[in-house]
Amino acid sequence: MKITLAQLSFHTGNFEGNTQKMLDALQLAKQEGSDLIVFSELATCGYPARDFLEFEDFIIKSKKCVADLAAQCFGIAAIVGSPEPNLKVEGKDLFNAAFFLEEGLVKKVVKKTLLPNYDIFDEYRYFEPNDEFSLIEYKGQKIALTICEDLWNLDENPMYVTTPMDKLIGFDPSVIINIAASPYSKTQIANRQNILKKNAIKYKLPVFYVNHIGAQTHLVFDGGSCVIEPNGVIFDELAYFEEDQKTYLIENGNIELINKLNTAIGNRNKLADLEQAMVLGIKQYFQKLNFKKAILGLSGGIDSALVTYLAVKALGKENVLPVMMPSEYSSSHSITDSIDLCNNLGLAYETISIEAVFNTFIDSLAPHFKDSSFGLAEENLQSRSRGVLLMGLANKHGYILLNTSNKSELAVGYGTLYGDMCGGLSVIGDLYKTEIFELCHYINRDIEIIPENILTKEPSAELRPNQKDSDSLPAYDVLDKILYYYIEEHLGPQQIIQKGFEEDLVKRILRMVNMNEWKRWQAPPVIRLSKKAFGPGRRVPISGKYLG
Amino acid sequence: MKITLAQLSFHTGNFEGNTQKMLDALQLAKQEGSDLIVFSELATCGYPARDFLEFEDFIIKSKKCVADLAAQCFGIAAIVGSPEPNLKVEGKDLFNAAFFLEEGLVKKVVKKTLLPNYDIFDEYRYFEPNDEFSLIEYKGQKIALTICEDLWNLDENPMYVTTPMDKLIGFDPSVIINIAASPYSKTQIANRQNILKKNAIKYKLPVFYVNHIGAQTHLVFDGGSCVIEPNGVIFDELAYFEEDQKTYLIENGNIELINKLNTAIGNRNKLADLEQAMVLGIKQYFQKLNFKKAILGLSGGIDSALVTYLAVKALGKENVLPVMMPSEYSSSHSITDSIDLCNNLGLAYETISIEAVFNTFIDSLAPHFKDSSFGLAEENLQSRSRGVLLMGLANKHGYILLNTSNKSELAVGYGTLYGDMCGGLSVIGDLYKTEIFELCHYINRDIEIIPENILTKEPSAELRPNQKDSDSLPAYDVLDKILYYYIEEHLGPQQIIQKGFEEDLVKRILRMVNMNEWKRWQAPPVIRLSKKAFGPGRRVPISGKYLG
Repeated sequence: MKITLAQLSFHTGNFEGNTQKMLDALQLAKQEGSDLIVFSELATCGYPARDFLEFEDFIIKSKKCVADLAAQCFGIAAIVGSPEPNLKVEGKDLFNAAFFLEEGLVKKVVKKTLLPNYDIFDEYRYFEPNDEFSLIEYKGQKIALTICEDLWNLDENPMYVTTPMDKLIGFDPSVIINIAASPYSKTQIANRQNILKKNAIKYKLPVFYVNHIGAQTHLVFDGGSCVIEPNGVIFDELAYFEEDQKTYLIENGNIELINKLNTAIGNRNKLADLEQAMVLGIKQYFQKLNFKKAILGLSGGIDSALVTYLAVKALGKENVLPVMMPSEYSSSHSITDSIDLCNNLGLAYETISIEAVFNTFIDSLAPHFKDSSFGLAEENLQSRSRGVLLMGLANKHGYILLNTSNKSELAVGYGTLYGDMCGGLSVIGDLYKTEIFELCHYINRDIEIIPENILTKEPSAELRPNQKDSDSLPAYDVLDKILYYYIEEHLGPQQIIQKGFEEDLVKRILRMVNMNEWKRWQAPPVIRLSKKAFGPGRRVPISGKYLG
Repeated sequence: MKITLAQLSFHTGNFEGNTQKMLDALQLAKQEGSDLIVFSELATCGYPARDFLEFEDFIIKSKKCVADLAAQCFGIAAIVGSPEPNLKVEGKDLFNAAFFLEEGLVKKVVKKTLLPNYDIFDEYRYFEPNDEFSLIEYKGQKIALTICEDLWNLDENPMYVTTPMDKLIGFDPSVIINIAASPYSKTQIANRQNILKKNAIKYKLPVFYVNHIGAQTHLVFDGGSCVIEPNGVIFDELAYFEEDQKTYLIENGNIELINKLNTAIGNRNKLADLEQAMVLGIKQYFQKLNFKKAILGLSGGIDSALVTYLAVKALGKENVLPVMMPSEYSSSHSITDSIDLCNNLGLAYETISIEAVFNTFIDSLAPHFKDSSFGLAEENLQSRSRGVLLMGLANKHGYILLNTSNKSELAVGYGTLYGDMCGGLSVIGDLYKTEIFELCHYINRDIEIIPENILTKEPSAELRPNQKDSDSLPAYDVLDKILYYYIEEHLGPQQIIQKGFEEDLVKRILRMVNMNEWKRWQAPPVIRLSKKAFGPGRRVPISGKYLG
């Protein structure tokens, strides 16, 4: 049997576009003499479709897309993910299903058993879990068709009481096919390959795996579809962070790639992946919303420098406008370093002083501020003056404002809501400050793109004379570790203190994290890069008192 | 058996406070000779604790609270909701449990079977469903103890494949006890009573029901705990929107209230409930975050007038500061009507013109706006000038800014992000404009509190000369109906058109709703008043193309 893995980028709710893309892929696979083409999980409607799944109309459109594909399945079969109504009166109204299409018809519907409902996943919100198991027999192969999470119950602390492959193996399958929508994170590529290898080895079967690629606002799907041999060796991979389509021959237990060259499998460069994830996140956010141009504030610091670099990679330098907005507290190098960066990137920029606006705010508020001394209110006014100026330019000329907040400052609330927290998309909001330094050094590995002075000077918000981040925060290498234990590892204060951090410091930082939930509630969507990003994957009460 | 229903307000993560409150209630029940006191669902840790449940430390603290309660259970038993670790290796790590405490010990743990995972509920994110059923025998009663949703699988389209009471009825119980955390919505009080009555009738048993009361950011729990007779008649209710505790004698199938007067059961005034829900929402948001004072912009329109009235009811007039911020486009009545409102409420106010700030923004941006004509960018600059001024005052003097956006404008994006969309809490963001008019007329039923001119003038944002909402939007009575069908009823465009609305209008409005998801992502928490509020209960892709 010849099997084609079609790793495509889908747009949630764009049924015409998604269908056409799959029909084109099907046509290509036919030309290559393929017997079966496999598309990813919920390919018809896109992933995650979220509450659009609650619209009957949306489900009908998904079904039409399956029917349109089936109508072209002559001389080739297809597997495609799509929502399917649950015809029983009891239980949720939908299944997360995979359709096996052959000879113009839906020949079989396989339903997902394990529904991820943690972090960014909400599948139990929409879907009823499957409890019926059988194989698909086709062209001499007995296919164990599973959907994403169905292969993931092999850990030490399994999250589910059923393991679908344990049921399917009883029917003596010859191959596992898994269709997925598994989003990128810094650790997910390795995790995913591990789990696929474990399945191949445990069940002594080849695994054909098809993942989504593309970005849906805060989620990036990195692709990396692959074929695993029964001994757990990766036979071949599809591309990462781009669409790809490959056809394999599987015969008498042998696998052969027939239409392209094998990918060299090796250790991936994690920093290169990280960079690509953010670039894809920006690119598809703009494409899918029909925007072209980004604007952002350039402060002279490392965060906005990195976002500028990534935006240029994603959108092209003609579509990125950095704006410098100095004040009386700005250092001279905030401008010169920013100009150096723009020159390195061949980028035009604008400069608008915030002094007039800031002073007018101060004058207008003077009768109400009375004789109070300069403080947080005045600092925030500067940041908000910048936010309003940037949004004014964005509204006037049709830019999307890119947010440049990092994870460390989002965590402890070291940022101004409606000020530097403005923006349509947070690009680096899931990178700790120390990770940003590491990535920038990587970007500069061959040639200085981010000016050296930006990498070496002390971080500062420059909202009062001689301000440094270290005035209010511990050193980033300490702060980021404590934050990582709390946010990514879910350790409580005692457990973190036991790792060797000062009790007062740990409690102070955890309190800052909790006290600033109200700000993060109003933060832009953050491109998810870690296993626990701020946003829909992390749901914490604003008015809770725990560690408060 | 004497049974005490303790309807209390808990604070998420405030273990000391929650424990003390329950110990006080227990003491009072003991004094009344009660045999059993019943607290609500997840009372130890508060509801919803959300991702705090993923901290081992948090679960340990919850268990300690249960132990502290158990230690006082001599001469009286208690039922209390609390998370319980799942000791099996398979499945989620927790159960949503109810502990039966007697003679200083945990005598029984009952686990929740039906885990709501729709709208604002995420219980399957944390909990494993129960599949073991048995009764609690105590003082001659055989108690079917269930947790909230466990009684809710009686609808025409049941969401679950198990109905716990169908299992428990086989053991021949004599009474149903249900502990709940069922949040308020305009339709929920009636729905809840219906479902409890249906259970009483179906199983021919009395139902003792204890609900939370209090607010957790966007959720308001209205209480309304009650006792239902086996014939489905409500025997008695506890208070709504406040704490209450009542003790009943149940003997030979008879029920008697022994420590207070029976509540007169009748049709509730829905507008009065609505008002109380928002007042409680404001009050507890401030209490739980340790804030006292609110600030808000007073535009002369109905939305800010209503929020001012509610804030005064919640916080007292000494703690509410309305600020008028006129511009050259403001009508004279925007000021005079606002002053009338403040006088009616006995409220001091401030006035700050935005002209200087707005003009400075325009001057600073002039080189970049060039010769473009006055448009949306300039309108937003005014709104953002106001937002920054209000936040400046809030930061300087320790106010929380109340947001005054309504549901109609949030839906279609008729508001300025970082401008009038600013605020720590959206009070009326789940009320359509037509509902706001209705409620204001109710508030004015005896005496004019909201000045009549505010109720009769045409709604306007006053961001350009002679602007009216009706310039860009259909009449609110039409708009709100279409929005209701789309948002609350999940009807697609064709179904709404079939209800008798113009095709172009429906499509235009639905497109506006979807195009503005990016703004709502960054909106403040909205107090939930309907069955589908903007916020965590409605999860829609930003970059989706459905109806886009």
